[in-house]
Amino acid sequence: MIMFNCDYNEGCIPEIMDAMVRTNMDQHPGYSEDDITERAKALIRKACGREDAAVHILVGGTQTNMTVIAASLRPHQGVIAPATGHIARHETGAIEAHGHKVLALPETDGKISAEQIEKFCADHYRDESFEHIVQPGMVYISSPTEFGTVYKRAEIEAIRKVCDRYDLTLFLDGARLGYGLACRENDLDLPFLARTCDVFYIGGTKQGALLGEAVVITKESLKKDFRYMIKQNGGMFAKGRLLGLQFETLFTDDLYMKYSRHAIAMAEKIIAGFAEAGVPRYSNSPTNQQFFVMEDEKACKLAEKYGFSTEGWIDDTHRLVRFCTSWATKEENVEKLLADLKLMA
Amino acid sequence: MIMFNCDYNEGCIPEIMDAMVRTNMDQHPGYSEDDITERAKALIRKACGREDAAVHILVGGTQTNMTVIAASLRPHQGVIAPATGHIARHETGAIEAHGHKVLALPETDGKISAEQIEKFCADHYRDESFEHIVQPGMVYISSPTEFGTVYKRAEIEAIRKVCDRYDLTLFLDGARLGYGLACRENDLDLPFLARTCDVFYIGGTKQGALLGEAVVITKESLKKDFRYMIKQNGGMFAKGRLLGLQFETLFTDDLYMKYSRHAIAMAEKIIAGFAEAGVPRYSNSPTNQQFFVMEDEKACKLAEKYGFSTEGWIDDTHRLVRFCTSWATKEENVEKLLADLKLMA
Amino acid sequence: MIMFNCDYNEGCIPEIMDAMVRTNMDQHPGYSEDDITERAKALIRKACGREDAAVHILVGGTQTNMTVIAASLRPHQGVIAPATGHIARHETGAIEAHGHKVLALPETDGKISAEQIEKFCADHYRDESFEHIVQPGMVYISSPTEFGTVYKRAEIEAIRKVCDRYDLTLFLDGARLGYGLACRENDLDLPFLARTCDVFYIGGTKQGALLGEAVVITKESLKKDFRYMIKQNGGMFAKGRLLGLQFETLFTDDLYMKYSRHAIAMAEKIIAGFAEAGVPRYSNSPTNQQFFVMEDEKACKLAEKYGFSTEGWIDDTHRLVRFCTSWATKEENVEKLLADLKLMA
Amino acid sequence: MIMFNCDYNEGCIPEIMDAMVRTNMDQHPGYSEDDITERAKALIRKACGREDAAVHILVGGTQTNMTVIAASLRPHQGVIAPATGHIARHETGAIEAHGHKVLALPETDGKISAEQIEKFCADHYRDESFEHIVQPGMVYISSPTEFGTVYKRAEIEAIRKVCDRYDLTLFLDGARLGYGLACRENDLDLPFLARTCDVFYIGGTKQGALLGEAVVITKESLKKDFRYMIKQNGGMFAKGRLLGLQFETLFTDDLYMKYSRHAIAMAEKIIAGFAEAGVPRYSNSPTNQQFFVMEDEKACKLAEKYGFSTEGWIDDTHRLVRFCTSWATKEENVEKLLADLKLMA
Repeated sequence: MIMFNCDYNEGCIPEIMDAMVRTNMDQHPGYSEDDITERAKALIRKACGREDAAVHILVGGTQTNMTVIAASLRPHQGVIAPATGHIARHETGAIEAHGHKVLALPETDGKISAEQIEKFCADHYRDESFEHIVQPGMVYISSPTEFGTVYKRAEIEAIRKVCDRYDLTLFLDGARLGYGLACRENDLDLPFLARTCDVFYIGGTKQGALLGEAVVITKESLKKDFRYMIKQNGGMFAKGRLLGLQFETLFTDDLYMKYSRHAIAMAEKIIAGFAEAGVPRYSNSPTNQQFFVMEDEKACKLAEKYGFSTEGWIDDTHRLVRFCTSWATKEENVEKLLADLKLMA
Repeated sequence: MIMFNCDYNEGCIPEIMDAMVRTNMDQHPGYSEDDITERAKALIRKACGREDAAVHILVGGTQTNMTVIAASLRPHQGVIAPATGHIARHETGAIEAHGHKVLALPETDGKISAEQIEKFCADHYRDESFEHIVQPGMVYISSPTEFGTVYKRAEIEAIRKVCDRYDLTLFLDGARLGYGLACRENDLDLPFLARTCDVFYIGGTKQGALLGEAVVITKESLKKDFRYMIKQNGGMFAKGRLLGLQFETLFTDDLYMKYSRHAIAMAEKIIAGFAEAGVPRYSNSPTNQQFFVMEDEKACKLAEKYGFSTEGWIDDTHRLVRFCTSWATKEENVEKLLADLKLMA
Repeated sequence: MIMFNCDYNEGCIPEIMDAMVRTNMDQHPGYSEDDITERAKALIRKACGREDAAVHILVGGTQTNMTVIAASLRPHQGVIAPATGHIARHETGAIEAHGHKVLALPETDGKISAEQIEKFCADHYRDESFEHIVQPGMVYISSPTEFGTVYKRAEIEAIRKVCDRYDLTLFLDGARLGYGLACRENDLDLPFLARTCDVFYIGGTKQGALLGEAVVITKESLKKDFRYMIKQNGGMFAKGRLLGLQFETLFTDDLYMKYSRHAIAMAEKIIAGFAEAGVPRYSNSPTNQQFFVMEDEKACKLAEKYGFSTEGWIDDTHRLVRFCTSWATKEENVEKLLADLKLMA
Repeated sequence: MIMFNCDYNEGCIPEIMDAMVRTNMDQHPGYSEDDITERAKALIRKACGREDAAVHILVGGTQTNMTVIAASLRPHQGVIAPATGHIARHETGAIEAHGHKVLALPETDGKISAEQIEKFCADHYRDESFEHIVQPGMVYISSPTEFGTVYKRAEIEAIRKVCDRYDLTLFLDGARLGYGLACRENDLDLPFLARTCDVFYIGGTKQGALLGEAVVITKESLKKDFRYMIKQNGGMFAKGRLLGLQFETLFTDDLYMKYSRHAIAMAEKIIAGFAEAGVPRYSNSPTNQQFFVMEDEKACKLAEKYGFSTEGWIDDTHRLVRFCTSWATKEENVEKLLADLKLMA
């Protein structure tokens, strides 16, 4: 079975494994108070062009989302998000478990716009009963989105302006940030994100680390006491040196981007191959997640040799499927997939 | 200013005020452990035809909703509700503050159907990632709804069947239950509700009491330790005897229904008068809340003498307005309103 | 049965009942946005000498405590309180249900000192693992305390200084504030409390109202959006005019203090009578709650005619009992109690 | 610097690192739904002698504690724990953040007894106001404790009986379970724990894994839907195969116990050496954490070459220090430490 299910089917990039083997018996203090982590944070601050940013490396995405959001909001506030956003759909209510409503807006290709957010906030304060309604306190977006699409610089800048107008914290989930930065459509970079968002994170788990998401905080009030919040949410990893080591490695020799670019190259090969085989795309994702509409029969046959995920049903005989590439995707496996697909066409 | 804003513009029915005056200096233990409350509970159990029901009288609607829902759900569960339901829209996220997502379904006239709930639950368990999604654990409906409409017996029975299939607790918010039971469309009664719902409440605040909602619980596991939950949610009223006294009064001499019928008669007068004046209705509410589409100009003129609420905007020159009647509505005030409206037509 | 169980065995002072009867059919908007409430708030602000204070009248004590504390703390913070404080012992974990640990300090007669708080905070920040420990964010005290004792001005001023040093919000629970202000030991007044605390409340329920606690907030950041917090916690009372009416009445013609003084006079009579009968006091409470150590046999006999509460057991044959007086306590009933006690001596 | 700070100063046992290197590029589904994890769970179920046990491997200790406790309790319930228990002291209020009070009992050497729990529960239900007080719903103990001491079989059996009497869930935190099982005092084993507790966990992070705690659940109602709870608490690790791989390795060739025994041997060497040097012990820990009372001057000098933790202050010139051994402790380092200590004597 060759798997294209997700971008975490393998372990980690070889450079990380080498570093782990090399440092395994070194002694370090726990809870991310070690030198390796300090070096990793310095590399990230430098890449973001923000010496004043607070950087924390947490274990996983859901944990990061819930910690950042819980640390940001007062109890009566909610977080605006696209209806398909990870926090809205796929975290078993972790945000609600922290007391906050996810204020879901209709999405287009996984994205929401400044106009939508503006209207939502204006409507809130225009309502006679506004105090009986959850107050918008934050905007959560992800880039790439759940559908693989990316935000453009101008879109995020416009959202920033609305956030300023309504006193909203702007939070960008970058679980797959590298794949976004490496794609053809991209016009973002880390300094822009650090400058424009209040807080965002640079994904590790889906980008070649075993685990780890690096949170970059520039908003002063959110920096304060953030480590207490990490601990309370079960994210104060005892052997924090491993998180540091992985991000130190990823941010050395441009590895983070190098591996991201590989995944994009493989994704583009899949796009081309599926087009050739006449399988229609579902979203215009330029990143490592590719969505297609596939006949059930064909999907079942393909599933005998390849792993991929079914994301939903289009009609009685067609389903929505997702193929992911990653830093680990082997070109020969893509070629096998495309060859088999061609045979079915 | 004559107010039709809501059904809580006045104090309480005179019989309650008399009872309060009469018993004011009597001594009773606190926290609803008094004889008056025992009598009130017995009257309610009898009216419901369920000697085994647990009855608790809480202070207000939001408090009742959050206490019942928090007592019912495990942390990973959410509550299915119409998108316009009170818990979904108008409780400042009280349910989320207790850790639970409100799983909002699109509504029709404030109602959701058994078919919708069935589909939602089936979709949940069919999803590959169902454990990453909030599990449906409860159904919340209200009758009358936020739009004044009522559920029919067959509709609730159908919902009950879905609840049995998916192990969902069925909870009916009856903040305006009397007005529903008194309307022409009604085919419900208290014994039916006690038999079909796991828990429901009989509203007092909007039905002629100063405050108080009587919760009727028939589900065994929910009865257990419910008073702890009341206390934790700030609902263990020190002078609980007042809650008991009000419900004892309401359930004596058929007062609850008598006053409800008065409100319905006044509402029907309003329906007829507005129709005559050519003001279009917005919903087919047969109860004490009446919704109309009104020209802004007309609404502003009417607002000089009458209180009513603006619920939204239909277009640039029309708004959605609500006029409420209640146990306290004076017929002469309705006549003044209709006369003035007629003059504007 | 003559009850000395608590200070909420009766309804309300006659002046409140009169005002309710008089205004019962007046129409007012809901949710404390009425004129009566405005007048009550103005009277309270004036009595506190703080025109800038935000005043909100909530339904009950537990609800007030949980709303104020939830509105004040960030998630990783806890509230310092005496181990016998109401929030620590008698609210079924309402504070924890809002996510916050009650940091209980050993009490003396229900009180904690500035020195204790200082030491607790200093120890916190000295700990190597301080980020793994709940951060102190607030101090909760009540005056009178659960044992009827009162804080002196100098004690509260000293606590204020510690709060300033460690950035703690100072919150005083005044559920029985009037009884404290009326006692011989008192050197507090409302302007002092408004000046020294960040937030405190003036109890109504135990002081002659049917229900209601008037919260006075002087801390700016806590004023913001407080009504959202009230609603989220189920405390946005539909017929808020009743809360306003009761506090308007209590703060007219010095009624709040007049009735408080009556309760103190009755308590002093009890102190003298019990001393005469040789029943030892348990605390030196100068207020309306009086604690005694009583032989079981005597207590059981007394309980045939009088209601009072057993608060614990001293040894195998003695118990700790509480007798409360209130605005409603009849002198003849106190005399009957003392006469019967004398016969037992 | 040679570190004895804690049992997580190094990476992982070499066998785990080898397994990770060997399987790094293998493809596996995420979220612990892989074959390796299945094998690890089977090994653990077998070691526990309970084929019906549910086994889940979570990322870390705090996360495990909060997930298990949140999954077990209803909102009005709290968890009984020793005052020095990890959940009571060192998780930044994670349990309270989930809504539950930690009901802290005074401890002796980190332990609480069946008698204490019995008395606490009996007192609860005897209190007139029991519904105003958090209901005990669970018992949390750890073995080894925070002071390195261990529970005996008879002690846990006695606690089990109290749990049965009061319907309490019994939860044992085994973050350092192997070190307990390997010590001279031990009379526990995994089948006993699986039989006697409702849920317990076998620590990995402090026992030679990079991360991971294996939860063993035998209580039926707690098994249900546990994976939803893991996800909601941010513990559904994307690359779950790593958790499985580590526990598969630890439970192969008796490695878990082999490495635990090494730590105990090193600890015994430290006990002997410190005794020889005349440094008094603070607790009678038979496991890998050793506590001593040390003169400040001596401690400071030692700290120039060795890492260890200061846990508190005994008096003005003495402190409480902790030295940990682990699977990774090198005998030569212990010998250096003892030699230097001897020189200071």
